[in-house]
This record gives sequence, structure tokens and C-alpha cells, in this order.
Amino acid sequence: MADDGDPNFNRRLTEIADRITVALDQLIPPAQGPEADLMRAMRHSALANGKRMRPFYVIETGAMFDAPEKSLLRAAAALECVHCYSLIHDDLPCMDDDDFRRGQPTVHKAFNEATAVLAGDALLTLAFKILASRETHQDPHIRLKLLERLADCSGALGMVGGQMIDMLEDESPRDLNTITRMQRLKTGALISYSVEAGGIIGGASEAERQALHGFAHDLGLAYQISDDLLDATGDEADVGKPLRTDAEAGKANFVTLLGVEQAQERVRLLAAQAKEHLAIFRNRANILLQSVDFVLDRTH
Amino acid sequence: MADDGDPNFNRRLTEIADRITVALDQLIPPAQGPEADLMRAMRHSALANGKRMRPFYVIETGAMFDAPEKSLLRAAAALECVHCYSLIHDDLPCMDDDDFRRGQPTVHKAFNEATAVLAGDALLTLAFKILASRETHQDPHIRLKLLERLADCSGALGMVGGQMIDMLEDESPRDLNTITRMQRLKTGALISYSVEAGGIIGGASEAERQALHGFAHDLGLAYQISDDLLDATGDEADVGKPLRTDAEAGKANFVTLLGVEQAQERVRLLAAQAKEHLAIFRNRANILLQSVDFVLDRTH
Repeated sequence: MADDGDPNFNRRLTEIADRITVALDQLIPPAQGPEADLMRAMRHSALANGKRMRPFYVIETGAMFDAPEKSLLRAAAALECVHCYSLIHDDLPCMDDDDFRRGQPTVHKAFNEATAVLAGDALLTLAFKILASRETHQDPHIRLKLLERLADCSGALGMVGGQMIDMLEDESPRDLNTITRMQRLKTGALISYSVEAGGIIGGASEAERQALHGFAHDLGLAYQISDDLLDATGDEADVGKPLRTDAEAGKANFVTLLGVEQAQERVRLLAAQAKEHLAIFRNRANILLQSVDFVLDRTH
Repeated sequence: MADDGDPNFNRRLTEIADRITVALDQLIPPAQGPEADLMRAMRHSALANGKRMRPFYVIETGAMFDAPEKSLLRAAAALECVHCYSLIHDDLPCMDDDDFRRGQPTVHKAFNEATAVLAGDALLTLAFKILASRETHQDPHIRLKLLERLADCSGALGMVGGQMIDMLEDESPRDLNTITRMQRLKTGALISYSVEAGGIIGGASEAERQALHGFAHDLGLAYQISDDLLDATGDEADVGKPLRTDAEAGKANFVTLLGVEQAQERVRLLAAQAKEHLAIFRNRANILLQSVDFVLDRTH
């Protein structure tokens, strides 16, 4: 286990989360006009307390390549817009029907369903707007690469496809292959994007991009299994959202299929493997290495 | 009135609609894997019979500037993806709750609500993917301009903002100012984008862009008023969707506020004004001129 008290790591994590919140506050249009509730709902979601792990990976990966800070911050904010939009839509009554998220009412509870659908739509659109803007990077090819890969990772062949698989559970019970595919698309694709974006902005070599991709692949899978472990064994008061949801809905997940012990063992193996991918970066990857244990220790 | 039988105009309109359907069929991922219903739902919406007026304007405006056909087709397909996504989400039970669209069941009726939310999300994402791709135009600045303006016109300060205003009707009755603002955002922004996109790809001058913007502004407003007239006076069997919806819901619109005759007079004035904007293009704008009467004659 990493030392959770590592002041350097925790300081950087908090600092990045704060910078992302400030950036999103500036990027989301002010709540004005008869449509002001739309912007309020966007803010309710995007400015809520979160660990901001995806932005963290954009910024820390980019920092390994001395990439421009402003570019990293804007790419990270765009990615967080996509993440928040996906949470808003996933929480809808016709999807996971969740009432609480990040310790506060979900958007459709705080506002209403129509506003939640629209706030998600607007956050997704804003993400592409941010990336297309000249302020994100002076090189148009880098902006376009960031855009195209974000669309790939978040669309029908990425995150949305994964959520679609997740919605089909009622119709046919899932096996481990289907759950792995679902995870890779639903949560894995955006985690991969987070390290890829840092590499795109930083001009990573092909070998470096492969290493980052392998790291994100293993970390993403480990994260999902640890999330299922949290759902099975965590404490609701600590986590800030209802647990045991999969078990109550009779949904198969990594823990129901593998059992707690084997699931824990997989997380350990994947964590070790994720770290090995970073060997080519030597001590430049220290923060990313520390992040693995932090991300997988879901008690904080 | 334009001669509805003008063979040149009608042939071009049909030809463009067919080309857009073929393009969307190629651009939407094939229905494969456990998530195949997602792609089926995207296709159900995007490949349905439609007049494809927005794509028509992208392509015919671009043709005035001899812009590359492939670029225009891809930009038009991207715009149609955004239009279709907005229809899917607007039809949801929590929004307008419509069961039929373009003469067939809406996506949430043919599939289910979760699939409809996700299919809309995926079509929106696909639009940006299409525009970011090198195949859309070799000049990265043109792709980025297309992207940024599409995000502006379809996001919180454009179409989604307009839909938000439309959803607030239950809470406070709308006056003419609010309805005009709603229309400008909800339908006007994408109509403006359709002629703007042709101009971006074709390299229109500042004066030409202003003229196109004025044309789209007047046409968009006239279109919305004619849509309200259709809702009040049209024939359901001809139109392929339920009518009298605003009246039944007690919703104010241009016709309930102005009356049928004054609404018709406004459409006539706006149509004349729209055509005047095109004077600087002389006979290059013949097809756009003919389109005005076609678009506003909602009996076909």
C-alpha cells in the first residue's frame, strides 16, 4: 500500500481537484436568462466535490513530458465534463435510478428529469467546445487529435456502448467476458483517454504511448473490480452513495462472479502489472506509481 | 409560392436526402456485440425518412462557393446527427413525450428509454467525431471552425438552452419575447449553422457570411411560425405526427399569441426578408431562394 499520508501526493491531488473546479466554474456559462436552470444543473454536477481522478491523470501524465499547463488543464476539464455528463445520464430513473451522487442529490432529484437530460447533453457539447478552442493548444493537429480520441472513447464504441451493455443485464445474465467488455468500454475507455490526452499534449513517443495505454488498461480494470468490491464490502456513510446496489438488483459483477478473495487477488495482480508498464519512465513516473495504490484503496 | 413541381429543385432535394442517408449508414457503427441495440436505435432515428433540410442547406450553400463535395456531405451528416439526437431526447417521456416521429415509433417506444438516452448521446458524440476526422477537410483550421461553431449552436447557449426554455412552460406562461428567444436557440441556431457550415467550407467572405446569417435568421423564425401554424391547422395523416399538441398542453406559441392570420403575415414578411439577404449572390442563390417557399409550405 502507498502511504496515504504522503504529503506530496495528496497535495498534488487536492491541488488538481481545486484547479479543475475553478476551471469548470469559468468554462460553464453563467446561469442567466429563462434557461438559467440548465446552467445551474450543469454546475450542480460539475462543481460537486469529486476526487477528479481523470483530470489528475491528464495533468500528471502531461507533466512527465513537460506539457503546457494550460493545455493540460483545459483537456482535463473537457474530460471531466464528459465524466459528469455520463454520471447525470446514468443516474436517471430509466438507467441506474440513483438519488445520491458525491454526497448530494443527483441532478434529476435536485432539478427534474428533463433538466438532467439537457444538462448532460450540454456538458458533453461543452467538452468538445473546450477542446476545439484555440486556447487549448496552439497546434490545431493536437486539438483535433484530442477531440477525435475523446469522441472515440466516449461514444458508441466506448463509454456509451459500455453503458448500453450495463443496461441489458435485465434481459440476459452476464458472464465474465461480457462484464469485462462492459467495463473496458464503460469506465476503461475514459481512464485510457486520461493518460492518452497527457501523452498527446506532451508529444509522447510511440513506445511511451503504448506504455501509458497498458498502464491505463490494467488500472481501469483494477479500478472497476475494486469498485465492485466497494459495493460489496464498503460503508455507505464513508462512500456517500448507496451500496449493495448490484446485489440487490441481482446484477452480476466481478465480485458476484469471482468472490471477494479472488477479486482482491485480481486487483493486486493488475496493480502490479500497471506499475510495470511505467518502468520505461523511471522516476518521472513516481506520482503515477503512487496513484495506483491510492486509486485502488477505496476506503478514502 | 414556388412551383412545387420545379423538377430541378425537387430532384436536388431528394438527391441530397438520399446521399445523407447513405453517408449516415456508413458513418454509424454496425450493430455488433452485446451493445448492438444501441447502434440499431441510432439507425432507427438517423436513417428514417426525413426531408433533411439542414443537410440540404449545408450542401447548397457550399455549392455556391464550389466547396468540395465530400467535405460538405460529411459536415451535413454531422449536423444531421445532432438534429436526430435532439429529436430522440426531445421525444422522451420526461420532455415532449411523443410516440411518433417521421411516421414511425420514436426511439424510446421502438426500444426503451435508456436506449433512447444513450442513442442520442452516441449520435451527438459521433457528430464531433465526423468533423474532427481528416476526411472531412484537409485544412485543420476548417475542421476546428466547423466543430467549434457546431458546439456553440447546439449547446447550452444554443439548441439545448432553447429546449430548456421550452420545458419551463409549465412553470410560467410564455410571452412573445420568450418564445422568440426559445425559437432562436432551439431551432434557429442549427438552421443558422447549416448555412454557416457551407460558408466555412467554401471560404465565404465576411459580407457573404453576414448575408447568409441574416438569411438563416429570418428563415429560421419563419420556419418556427409555420411549424406552429402546421400544429394549429395541419392534417395529422399528411404530417405523420400528432398535431394540436401545443393547444392540448395549453402551451403558448406564435399562433396562440398572434392568431393564425397575423402569424401567416409574419411568415410572408420574413420569407421576403430572407430572400433579400441573398441578393448579393445574384443567380448563384437560385436554389436557396426556391428553398424558402418550399420550406415554409408545410403541406408536403
